[in-house]
Amino acid sequence: MLPTQTIAFTIGLLLSVIGIAELIPAAIDWANDHDNAADFLRCALISIFFGGALLIANVNYEKKLSSRWVFLLTTLSWVFMSLFAAFPLYYSDLNISFAQAFFESVSAITTTGSTVLNGLDQMSHGVLFWRSFVQWIGGIGVIAFAIIFLPFLRIGGMQLFQAESSDRSEKIMSRSTNLIWALVIVYILITVICAVTYWILGMGWFDAANHAMTTIPTGGFSTHDRSFGHFDSAALEYAATFFMFLGGLPFVLYIQLLFKGRFMFFKDDQFKAFVFLLAMLTFVLTCWLWDNSAYTLEQSFRYSIFNIVSVVTTTGYATSDYSLWGSFAVTLFLFMTYLGACAGSTTGGLKVMRLVVVSKTLGRQFKTLIYPNGVFTIRYQGKPLDYSVCMAVLGFLSLYVFSNAILTVLLALTGLDFITSISSAATALANVGPGLGDIVGPAGNFSSLSETAIWLLSAGMLLGRLEVLTVIILFRRSYWTS
Amino acid sequence: MLPTQTIAFTIGLLLSVIGIAELIPAAIDWANDHDNAADFLRCALISIFFGGALLIANVNYEKKLSSRWVFLLTTLSWVFMSLFAAFPLYYSDLNISFAQAFFESVSAITTTGSTVLNGLDQMSHGVLFWRSFVQWIGGIGVIAFAIIFLPFLRIGGMQLFQAESSDRSEKIMSRSTNLIWALVIVYILITVICAVTYWILGMGWFDAANHAMTTIPTGGFSTHDRSFGHFDSAALEYAATFFMFLGGLPFVLYIQLLFKGRFMFFKDDQFKAFVFLLAMLTFVLTCWLWDNSAYTLEQSFRYSIFNIVSVVTTTGYATSDYSLWGSFAVTLFLFMTYLGACAGSTTGGLKVMRLVVVSKTLGRQFKTLIYPNGVFTIRYQGKPLDYSVCMAVLGFLSLYVFSNAILTVLLALTGLDFITSISSAATALANVGPGLGDIVGPAGNFSSLSETAIWLLSAGMLLGRLEVLTVIILFRRSYWTS
Repeated sequence: MLPTQTIAFTIGLLLSVIGIAELIPAAIDWANDHDNAADFLRCALISIFFGGALLIANVNYEKKLSSRWVFLLTTLSWVFMSLFAAFPLYYSDLNISFAQAFFESVSAITTTGSTVLNGLDQMSHGVLFWRSFVQWIGGIGVIAFAIIFLPFLRIGGMQLFQAESSDRSEKIMSRSTNLIWALVIVYILITVICAVTYWILGMGWFDAANHAMTTIPTGGFSTHDRSFGHFDSAALEYAATFFMFLGGLPFVLYIQLLFKGRFMFFKDDQFKAFVFLLAMLTFVLTCWLWDNSAYTLEQSFRYSIFNIVSVVTTTGYATSDYSLWGSFAVTLFLFMTYLGACAGSTTGGLKVMRLVVVSKTLGRQFKTLIYPNGVFTIRYQGKPLDYSVCMAVLGFLSLYVFSNAILTVLLALTGLDFITSISSAATALANVGPGLGDIVGPAGNFSSLSETAIWLLSAGMLLGRLEVLTVIILFRRSYWTS
Repeated sequence: MLPTQTIAFTIGLLLSVIGIAELIPAAIDWANDHDNAADFLRCALISIFFGGALLIANVNYEKKLSSRWVFLLTTLSWVFMSLFAAFPLYYSDLNISFAQAFFESVSAITTTGSTVLNGLDQMSHGVLFWRSFVQWIGGIGVIAFAIIFLPFLRIGGMQLFQAESSDRSEKIMSRSTNLIWALVIVYILITVICAVTYWILGMGWFDAANHAMTTIPTGGFSTHDRSFGHFDSAALEYAATFFMFLGGLPFVLYIQLLFKGRFMFFKDDQFKAFVFLLAMLTFVLTCWLWDNSAYTLEQSFRYSIFNIVSVVTTTGYATSDYSLWGSFAVTLFLFMTYLGACAGSTTGGLKVMRLVVVSKTLGRQFKTLIYPNGVFTIRYQGKPLDYSVCMAVLGFLSLYVFSNAILTVLLALTGLDFITSISSAATALANVGPGLGDIVGPAGNFSSLSETAIWLLSAGMLLGRLEVLTVIILFRRSYWTS
């Protein structure tokens, strides 16, 4: 039985949250005496009305939900939130098509950070705040999804994640309320520390708040067309690098630190692999850049680490147009787009956990080839890895590769050149932000893309955010037949 | 214990074959009164001398060989054969560097078909024959490897292949001699039919023989710079399409047809999937090309099917420069490069068998997500697929993707642009032939690449030909420690 009431209630709750949240940019633009205030207010009331109606009509919803319908619930939630968060952008003075407004909204809520907007510097503070705030909400939404639902759904090997974050004795649903509160506190705390740091280092308070709200969820929206390059401050760049890095770590580690006083970072396989990966990449690119550009060693290091952390954590801030650094950098950045940081954070992409599992699984396969009769156990976080987890992770990787290929071909069909097609497909699926080439590169803008491409990329961002499987499963007949 | 004697004996045998084979182009150039004759003769004698010495010195080799050392034996065999087949090209009047000669030789023996040579139309018949003949030898070598060793080694899910081609009661080694002879007969027969067809349809006898020797092993070397476009004959193009298709089928099907009178084609899951794949791709590209070019419907169909079959079977003949057809075609051809035709043929790439297994494995994963407590069996050729096979196939896919990414980055590091780097890495690993872009595209030539790029691509071709794992396993410490 399709649990329509449960789904309607949840969507109603989320739309109410969106509606109430829209009152903040309405207030900001009203304080600044800007026309957008009325548009925001109107959209807020519509969201609250719709959301409230759904809430009230379905208040007696069935509390139990089988894991099967969580896929549908999650996909619909993200789509409806994107839709209602798009209205203020569409009805404001931005003068963009609905496809563009929806794209911008999806880009925000999936913490991607690609933009179709030009002239951010002249935009009303309400609009700028709304973009950042939606990204911030999307960030906490995805961590909650990752902590509560993903292990339970066993998507792409995420059952692993449960093993590390929960005690076996506790039931998932009874823990979830406590976990969510702990997460909210940690999330707000880190965002505030980030904002204050930015402010101390020279940003205005509005810029500081906005950038903090897009740094921690590794989103990447900025309040300036030149993104982080606008501030031209080495200190701010190092600070942003540090906070993007923090945003790329599993948030359960912070929860454990804050609420249980346990510092588990160096015991976490993912953390170690992530630090190693970043160190390796930064070392290689710094050396190469120092050798092949006019930058000093410090500049080479700073540009390398900033842009690598920005892309690998799928934030997507830009300080310099790395697509002008030559084909080695371009190729490296394209492949880095796929990586992603740690599972359990707000980052997209494949995620370090899966990379670790893939490399261990391949290691076991090699051993089995050498000793056909041997039995080899591989471990993650000290616990043996089940075959089904390895299979789920490898399957996820294949599905990811195929989705990326199909999206690239469809984008090429709209007339985009190859590098724009493949990099925008990759950046959408991995929720990074910038692609490569003149149009979608770090110095470019998605505004010149056709409507079809805009819709395709919006779908790609949602697909990537919901770990691909959650969406594709809805298109299988066996999902709907009982 | 490293079986040095067995390895030395095998290499000796192969070098003797190469040496004796080199007498043919020597005779051809001697008949044509060309200077290359002496060079070929000299190289032939060197090969025979080295090979013979190794043979005689190790004639008492240990007949048993553990599967572990087959990896080393196979890799060394391919490297040594490439090396000795390169000498005649290096010492002839071609005036190329040794890296280029080695590349050309590897490209031949791995049935890739990328070339560093310009001016094929003016080249001595001995050289042209040698290139084609090495490709023909490489083709039968790889089928023998696939039939006899791959299932035994369980590389990338190839144990599947054993299940379909052998009766369980027979031991692998006792069957192999019969199988090899059957294979040789089938291989020669199809090549002769192909050559006669080409000749009837208007090729000269030398061109017909050479092109038959590069069509059936899906190699793709031509005797003309313009490749198949030189003949400008629709009938020849359709004939080549048909024979490339035949070259892409599992050769066991021919053996069963010829020696057991069983027509098993339509019972073969791989055959059905392969035909379906080609039909789909041809339909889409024909429609698109008809709509977006000045070609007639017949031309659109012919160019589509010829180039699709050429790339998917990893042959790599060109009739027209599809890289000028626009970004949709370019993107489609890049992704087609990875596919490959059927396992058990001479094609490279991932191969249809693996694609079928991946899609079935993903289907099972979806079902498991919907019904977490259900147990689902997937079948290939009517037999249940073991988890370990699915895992091996998915692992192969991951390794393939990573190898391709690393090779692309290394090529970009030599200064090549992104599209050249990624497409030449793909075309080398999949043993296709042409890449994309001005340099390595269907109308281009690998001769302008740097020495480093040439060596990297040679390594890539060998890696792809030996199913990646066979080579990479040698670089793991656990391979060498007992």
